[in-house]
Amino acid sequence: MAGKFITFEGGEGSGKSTQIRLLGDFLQTCNITVSLTKEPGGTPLGQELRRILVEGDIEKMDAKSEALLFFADRRIHLTQKVWPSLEQNQWVLSDRFADSTMAYQYYAYHQRLSKEDIKMLYGFSVGTFAPDLTFILDIDPKIGLERSFQKATTMSVKELRNEQRELAFHENLRKGYLEIARENSNRCVVLDAHQTVDSLHEQIVSVVKKRFEL
Amino acid sequence: MAGKFITFEGGEGSGKSTQIRLLGDFLQTCNITVSLTKEPGGTPLGQELRRILVEGDIEKMDAKSEALLFFADRRIHLTQKVWPSLEQNQWVLSDRFADSTMAYQYYAYHQRLSKEDIKMLYGFSVGTFAPDLTFILDIDPKIGLERSFQKATTMSVKELRNEQRELAFHENLRKGYLEIARENSNRCVVLDAHQTVDSLHEQIVSVVKKRFEL
Repeated sequence: MAGKFITFEGGEGSGKSTQIRLLGDFLQTCNITVSLTKEPGGTPLGQELRRILVEGDIEKMDAKSEALLFFADRRIHLTQKVWPSLEQNQWVLSDRFADSTMAYQYYAYHQRLSKEDIKMLYGFSVGTFAPDLTFILDIDPKIGLERSFQKATTMSVKELRNEQRELAFHENLRKGYLEIARENSNRCVVLDAHQTVDSLHEQIVSVVKKRFEL
Repeated sequence: MAGKFITFEGGEGSGKSTQIRLLGDFLQTCNITVSLTKEPGGTPLGQELRRILVEGDIEKMDAKSEALLFFADRRIHLTQKVWPSLEQNQWVLSDRFADSTMAYQYYAYHQRLSKEDIKMLYGFSVGTFAPDLTFILDIDPKIGLERSFQKATTMSVKELRNEQRELAFHENLRKGYLEIARENSNRCVVLDAHQTVDSLHEQIVSVVKKRFEL
């Protein structure tokens, strides 16, 4: 597959979606065809699952049920969108991918699922495929959550669910992402998301240019 | 868990739903509280997944995505309905359970999924839990499909999808169920579903009385 798969990870308010848009714009100036996507819900079928997962009454669902649905969404996303796009030489930029499952389910939720179970589901659903590059946008959750509340008027009440968990949850999420980055240092690049949008974008472009020899 | 979990398996037109109703009626005359259920779609959340799985454009979904959704439905069914009912001393009769996944995905679809993968998903989603008793209603698919077409006016076009596969598919499904019964001979009882509704019901009652000392 000739395209590249770049994923963006990070807590609420870390600026993932803004940075994805900006990187997409930059890559297009390099004559690269770009596909912007997200998890969950990167496909029409996945949108139905996202509705169940993000807006639904998820409190009623246990951790394993939720994980099966997230990986179903991921598998549908890969087979119907990510892999076909990569085969057509497109670069795919995704707002969240499998690191989110590990960061939320294992780290933030205090090992609600074991690492082994998450890796087993990854093996079944994704196989040996992995992103070519993952940006982890690191931010103090106090600042990230504040940013995130500012755009809250555009979110549904149910989508605010993730935002409203207690601070300790978001601090564990942040630590989890940093641990994931350490364990996958070839693939993951941690960037300081406290800086301005423009300066973070410049750092991202610089990493991408160097990594892929643009 | 003091209740009993009895599952009914078999191809189209084998009479599962009729026999479940009749067995439920019989058990109630024994002062047993009965819960009748089915897979997929035994819960409100599962109904939404059933809509995607049975009525949706499933041809677009690959085997692994479909399996993840079926096991998500199964896990939700177990945690929200089957296990709580069993804990309340109810007997749960289910129209299909995990044997359907093995019979369809491994046997009928020519090993579209491996046995190992199906068992791995079972282990994650169900653990060591299993039905106390499984009835496999065995029928020649030519006869079963004919019965099934007779009730087709009550089915949606999409629900007819399963019915309309070629005969070889249904013959492999039948062989698969018989193989599953051989491999799980303590749990599974194969019954000839060509006989009349009443006579099949009598056989079922006789097995249940003996197995559970009613």
